[in-house]
Amino acid sequence: MINILVINGPNLNLLGTREKEVYGNETLEDIARRVNMEAQSLGADIRFIQSNHEGEIIDNIHAARGKFDAIIINPGAFTHYSIAIRDAIKSVEIPAFEVHLSNIYAREEFRHKSVIAPVCIGQISGFGPMVYVLALEAAVDFLRRLK
Amino acid sequence: MINILVINGPNLNLLGTREKEVYGNETLEDIARRVNMEAQSLGADIRFIQSNHEGEIIDNIHAARGKFDAIIINPGAFTHYSIAIRDAIKSVEIPAFEVHLSNIYAREEFRHKSVIAPVCIGQISGFGPMVYVLALEAAVDFLRRLK
Amino acid sequence: MINILVINGPNLNLLGTREKEVYGNETLEDIARRVNMEAQSLGADIRFIQSNHEGEIIDNIHAARGKFDAIIINPGAFTHYSIAIRDAIKSVEIPAFEVHLSNIYAREEFRHKSVIAPVCIGQISGFGPMVYVLALEAAVDFLRRLK
Amino acid sequence: MINILVINGPNLNLLGTREKEVYGNETLEDIARRVNMEAQSLGADIRFIQSNHEGEIIDNIHAARGKFDAIIINPGAFTHYSIAIRDAIKSVEIPAFEVHLSNIYAREEFRHKSVIAPVCIGQISGFGPMVYVLALEAAVDFLRRLK
Amino acid sequence: MINILVINGPNLNLLGTREKEVYGNETLEDIARRVNMEAQSLGADIRFIQSNHEGEIIDNIHAARGKFDAIIINPGAFTHYSIAIRDAIKSVEIPAFEVHLSNIYAREEFRHKSVIAPVCIGQISGFGPMVYVLALEAAVDFLRRLK
Amino acid sequence: MINILVINGPNLNLLGTREKEVYGNETLEDIARRVNMEAQSLGADIRFIQSNHEGEIIDNIHAARGKFDAIIINPGAFTHYSIAIRDAIKSVEIPAFEVHLSNIYAREEFRHKSVIAPVCIGQISGFGPMVYVLALEAAVDFLRRLK
Amino acid sequence: MINILVINGPNLNLLGTREKEVYGNETLEDIARRVNMEAQSLGADIRFIQSNHEGEIIDNIHAARGKFDAIIINPGAFTHYSIAIRDAIKSVEIPAFEVHLSNIYAREEFRHKSVIAPVCIGQISGFGPMVYVLALEAAVDFLRRLK
Amino acid sequence: MINILVINGPNLNLLGTREKEVYGNETLEDIARRVNMEAQSLGADIRFIQSNHEGEIIDNIHAARGKFDAIIINPGAFTHYSIAIRDAIKSVEIPAFEVHLSNIYAREEFRHKSVIAPVCIGQISGFGPMVYVLALEAAVDFLRRLK
Amino acid sequence: MINILVINGPNLNLLGTREKEVYGNETLEDIARRVNMEAQSLGADIRFIQSNHEGEIIDNIHAARGKFDAIIINPGAFTHYSIAIRDAIKSVEIPAFEVHLSNIYAREEFRHKSVIAPVCIGQISGFGPMVYVLALEAAVDFLRRLK
Amino acid sequence: MINILVINGPNLNLLGTREKEVYGNETLEDIARRVNMEAQSLGADIRFIQSNHEGEIIDNIHAARGKFDAIIINPGAFTHYSIAIRDAIKSVEIPAFEVHLSNIYAREEFRHKSVIAPVCIGQISGFGPMVYVLALEAAVDFLRRLK
Amino acid sequence: MINILVINGPNLNLLGTREKEVYGNETLEDIARRVNMEAQSLGADIRFIQSNHEGEIIDNIHAARGKFDAIIINPGAFTHYSIAIRDAIKSVEIPAFEVHLSNIYAREEFRHKSVIAPVCIGQISGFGPMVYVLALEAAVDFLRRLK
Amino acid sequence: MINILVINGPNLNLLGTREKEVYGNETLEDIARRVNMEAQSLGADIRFIQSNHEGEIIDNIHAARGKFDAIIINPGAFTHYSIAIRDAIKSVEIPAFEVHLSNIYAREEFRHKSVIAPVCIGQISGFGPMVYVLALEAAVDFLRRLK
Repeated sequence: MINILVINGPNLNLLGTREKEVYGNETLEDIARRVNMEAQSLGADIRFIQSNHEGEIIDNIHAARGKFDAIIINPGAFTHYSIAIRDAIKSVEIPAFEVHLSNIYAREEFRHKSVIAPVCIGQISGFGPMVYVLALEAAVDFLRRLK
Repeated sequence: MINILVINGPNLNLLGTREKEVYGNETLEDIARRVNMEAQSLGADIRFIQSNHEGEIIDNIHAARGKFDAIIINPGAFTHYSIAIRDAIKSVEIPAFEVHLSNIYAREEFRHKSVIAPVCIGQISGFGPMVYVLALEAAVDFLRRLK
Repeated sequence: MINILVINGPNLNLLGTREKEVYGNETLEDIARRVNMEAQSLGADIRFIQSNHEGEIIDNIHAARGKFDAIIINPGAFTHYSIAIRDAIKSVEIPAFEVHLSNIYAREEFRHKSVIAPVCIGQISGFGPMVYVLALEAAVDFLRRLK
Repeated sequence: MINILVINGPNLNLLGTREKEVYGNETLEDIARRVNMEAQSLGADIRFIQSNHEGEIIDNIHAARGKFDAIIINPGAFTHYSIAIRDAIKSVEIPAFEVHLSNIYAREEFRHKSVIAPVCIGQISGFGPMVYVLALEAAVDFLRRLK
Repeated sequence: MINILVINGPNLNLLGTREKEVYGNETLEDIARRVNMEAQSLGADIRFIQSNHEGEIIDNIHAARGKFDAIIINPGAFTHYSIAIRDAIKSVEIPAFEVHLSNIYAREEFRHKSVIAPVCIGQISGFGPMVYVLALEAAVDFLRRLK
Repeated sequence: MINILVINGPNLNLLGTREKEVYGNETLEDIARRVNMEAQSLGADIRFIQSNHEGEIIDNIHAARGKFDAIIINPGAFTHYSIAIRDAIKSVEIPAFEVHLSNIYAREEFRHKSVIAPVCIGQISGFGPMVYVLALEAAVDFLRRLK
Repeated sequence: MINILVINGPNLNLLGTREKEVYGNETLEDIARRVNMEAQSLGADIRFIQSNHEGEIIDNIHAARGKFDAIIINPGAFTHYSIAIRDAIKSVEIPAFEVHLSNIYAREEFRHKSVIAPVCIGQISGFGPMVYVLALEAAVDFLRRLK
Repeated sequence: MINILVINGPNLNLLGTREKEVYGNETLEDIARRVNMEAQSLGADIRFIQSNHEGEIIDNIHAARGKFDAIIINPGAFTHYSIAIRDAIKSVEIPAFEVHLSNIYAREEFRHKSVIAPVCIGQISGFGPMVYVLALEAAVDFLRRLK
Repeated sequence: MINILVINGPNLNLLGTREKEVYGNETLEDIARRVNMEAQSLGADIRFIQSNHEGEIIDNIHAARGKFDAIIINPGAFTHYSIAIRDAIKSVEIPAFEVHLSNIYAREEFRHKSVIAPVCIGQISGFGPMVYVLALEAAVDFLRRLK
Repeated sequence: MINILVINGPNLNLLGTREKEVYGNETLEDIARRVNMEAQSLGADIRFIQSNHEGEIIDNIHAARGKFDAIIINPGAFTHYSIAIRDAIKSVEIPAFEVHLSNIYAREEFRHKSVIAPVCIGQISGFGPMVYVLALEAAVDFLRRLK
Repeated sequence: MINILVINGPNLNLLGTREKEVYGNETLEDIARRVNMEAQSLGADIRFIQSNHEGEIIDNIHAARGKFDAIIINPGAFTHYSIAIRDAIKSVEIPAFEVHLSNIYAREEFRHKSVIAPVCIGQISGFGPMVYVLALEAAVDFLRRLK
Repeated sequence: MINILVINGPNLNLLGTREKEVYGNETLEDIARRVNMEAQSLGADIRFIQSNHEGEIIDNIHAARGKFDAIIINPGAFTHYSIAIRDAIKSVEIPAFEVHLSNIYAREEFRHKSVIAPVCIGQISGFGPMVYVLALEAAVDFLRRLK
């Protein structure tokens, strides 16, 4: 069984309840449900968390050691400045997959820069909730090829 | 009745006890009291909070939905890098009013840039504790004109 | 009696007659009237001027010495490049209060930089004509605390 | 009848009397005469002014409202820093056409940037006095297509 | 039936024959075959092309109008400077999906900037040949949701 | 008889068939026809070409030597990076006139820079298809003055 | 007796368990023990804490007032962006000594900038766990010279 | 007889009445008197003017043609942005000598750049009113060597 | 026998026919002939090509695999932006030697940057046609030392 | 016995005789004496030199090969630009320890950058003469751990 | 008697023997002689030295303490990077006067920046050998006013 | 007979004794010998010097006037900042040829910039000791063509 931790950064708890014309009607719980189903069909197990606290995200990444085979992370606004999360991912040496609901390269200039991407396996952005599903597939594919 | 949340960022809890020659003798409690009185005379109700934790500030902004008509925020040092707080303000769609005790444009270069100002209605800086009173008036005026 | 000079920079004479959806219907004369009334209730006397000429604004700042206790200035486009006005304010040593009708931090990048703010007591931007009223209060508060 | 205001910025009054190898022998009066003749053949009426004063140029742009259908402007050195003239053009909402006698992109780096071009319909540079004639045609064509 | 054009930019014809330790043993033909199979299972039809010529890529994007429902593009080195390809994608108004075999954010600084991403639906980078499969799924998902 | 080569860069073949609200209904053929008519009345002969290939444009510029008296060029996206086209124009020493349908200074920052303008006689931008007519006049005027 | 607070920032709790080839086998507990022994021989008392939470670090700095004579801080990734921690140190006016296990000037460009160093007495970087011992000596020396 | 025009830019009329600890007690009239005396001993005639209006300064530079052999200019704040004054000096082709009372290179970063210096013969800064006397000598020496 | 491919980029076909005062009278054919003779004396065989098409140059670099032992490349204007050619050279793993007829470091700022140099063995610039001869010697020397 | 060369760069010979309020009363000789005593207690031998000549410092670094086990260097102003000293340290492959009396990160912007730090083991700055003692301990500790 | 040290930096020994069209026919000896004569008439004594060695210049500045009342320095190319000379001047606390034969602001961009000017009383540039005479007068005037 | 001075900058005296895997086993003496032999076969005479002192290199360049027909210079680290050496080369007007053993464009960013290249005839970098031989040939070819 493959174990994957899905981490969601600040403000993502508001999904589906705000700016629906941009982010759609799906709540984070809806997405979690969809990813869970997808995971089961791929023989993977998902833990899905969200926090507005940088420190909590780091604590969770640390705690993932020995428990999870991969991390899927939507760092939200932390994408652009949390070198601490970057270092946490690098330290635990668990392969990480960065996702963004919106196409960050079509938004404000300051959103084009991810301090976290360089320590991830790769990045998926712009396809809405589908990015979680794709990252899950990428992670499973990556882990299977490792063996 | 107008309900307004006043949020104070990191280190503002030390007001009145440090660098008094710069920031004066008033503590944050003194300011809260003054703003409360002013609020009553304007028919507004104030909740006054402070936190050194970016995540707590975001949680409070989220919780303000449906409870507060406006946010007055002195983001302290978060002014210059917390895109997460910026996104929180933008997400909850409560009109926000940024304040700074000191004139941030007369200080170090890195303090001239606010990542939060672009999502606020406006900004007031440089007049000491008076900035809270002025922001309160601006907020009340803004909300009254909306109706 | 407190005497305050309110200086308005280039293009502000067009207020209320252009881009009304952005700046509202109030003309500069309407604003002057409103600020005057507010001033009377605060025991202050206002002189309200406008010029499209940088040199005239400087001349007026110079002439303010010995006549006015404070300057409220909306430098318009001069905000971003008139170091000459900045030096004039610094030279006459009359406390100055910078105002902007719109939130300059939510507009084009080049409008985020004020060369004048560093020599002012503080800055208020984004609340429409209300910024003049708030600056008036800030000025009166500042001058009263000086005594 | 189409009415067009042609505004010339600082130092253009010296045309034909200085740096003739660069700018040719034609004085600004010669150009005015040529443009006038061209205008008549196109059913347009021209007013041709020059000023070394930024404020005067702004005053003239303001006064153009209701009197002129288009503005042709050679802002001279103001091209590179007069945000006040830019705002004046934007405010009066008269279509403006920017011209330069010399090719500003073949000169010093600081001349490559026009703060005024973004609020104009377009820009013509580099063809000597002919740029006024071309701008006149562009303006007439533009106004005719509007109807 | 969904029709998708997969465009591969310069040097991708060498895949599987060069720098195998970085890019693996799969040739572009191998990838085309894999994507084709995946496409069939998703009810989609793929055309898979490669060119080292910017102009040819633009011609192909133009020719895609009316024939293809989506474009998957790995622009190779053109990612970083071909504004002409960017404009081609924008012009034809076919939804485009950008892919990169390697994590471009973990490589040289100049590879972090994509001039093409802002006109695409989204971007996937870093998972080797798997990025084509994921982009295919993203495209099919995107097109299905459109209907 | 004056012979003029009109060169159109990438994506201009789509004119009149895409983004009509921006670029209008005229196709490149319509424009060619209009410019031809104008040319005849001025005693000039036009050859009108378009290519999405940088190399082809360079080949055409080279082939123009001894055949054409002037070049009118709308370099499209190549405006911003094709130093090779710049060098081609400089090398053949045929006077060149740069045109742009839209006002490139009112668009994205990266479109404000033309690497080609410094080697041209001048530049016209922002007046739609009219820019070709104006450039034709500028070219004829320039060539007549040379004699 | 001299009281010194040693603060360790994000990810330092993983010391000795990750990237041992870079950071060695010593855990943070090992280091705390070594520094404690050294402190005793110098007549100093150490409190040694670690947190991944910026807010907690600020809270601890505030609480240090009146209890500690000096702060030794290894801010980890917060070094590069936590202006909030910088302001906390400046506010409490306790002399601070910045340490880094690795030579931050021999690593990625973004690690060369410390926003915290300007408010510290000095900085020691690059000598592994030894930096804590050296900072302890520096602090004791500094405090002794103050008296 | 050598005729020299001495031009003083914005705020210099306040000399001797403001910031005396920086600029000394001498008024502009005092300086004019001193320079006049020095001029007489050198066989030169001085006209000494001051203006806060950029346009007036340009008008004066233009009017200097045929009347003055050299210009000594203290452009005040215009030093840093008035390309219009720069162009005026270049146009009239009268040798110009730039002076500054204070050492502009020991002040704020933005004062280190003079847009006017490149078109002057040279620059003298930092010696108080003495800079006018030195510039006068430099001008007389320069003009004598020309003959 | 050593086989060397000499690639010439855009506009180099015009050599000897344009700007002779800068580049001399030698045509590319003359240079090819000279390099051929030099090659024979060194026991090497040369193929000498030129193209104005980036794509053709890449195709030629690819085709060189297995046929040529070294590449001498004068990328012309592609030097400054063709990351695609850079990647082609890196991919084929044939040692490459960059040459420029003129000293690119004594020309415009934008010519100082070569995106291709970092993947070459070295670079020779500034000695006219002689640079090809020197690169040939460098290549032969390099290949002989490899054995 | 451990042999350590202590190198002092330009102007450090003036220590104790200039700007005493900044650097204290200790002369370089006083410091040498203190470091010598400390060295003896650690079983190390010190050679202490100073030069205002970049070349002499390089010569001394070269001569240190085979004679010294470590270098402690206070490069003074050379810190910020002497790439030649950086290369000398890198070449001789003797472990180097950079020290600064003052906290260079609390001074002018240009002093924040050390071109030498990246080739040193680490850096100590800000503690006055104590930095030499600390560097000595760091060096001895480093060398002991090597064995 | 006033004692003044005149220091000349690298390449100034070639004066009068190179690039005479730029620097004139006067050798450094000629200038020394002229300055000496001028000094005598002002009651000052001059020592005139030149060195191509940064270290020697620093040594000379150090040795000036107690012997010279002022330093006139033409730092030549050291102007732009010798922070060591800057620190030397600052350390010895002898008032310094920077001179340049040519107008450094009319030359290459990199010559516009002086790292030495901020620690001097002022700067004179552009008047040929006359700058030494003017600096001498400025120095004498400065010293006389000090008393 | 042609006389050529070969100048080697800082740290090149260590060649062949340090970092052999990068620079090879050849010492500077070996290279001198090889270049000498090559020179004899070309009818040239070589003087080969090395110095770690910028001032000595300048003195040697000055002394070369009248004695040497060309200078070959490997400025080592001085390449990147010694404007003084640049000016020396420009002043003596002896044609100079810059060489680098390694490909400076494949190393750290700061090594990509040569302040000396703009005043040389050309530059050769990246081919190890062979660069001296190639520069010798370039110099002889250059001098022969001059005659």
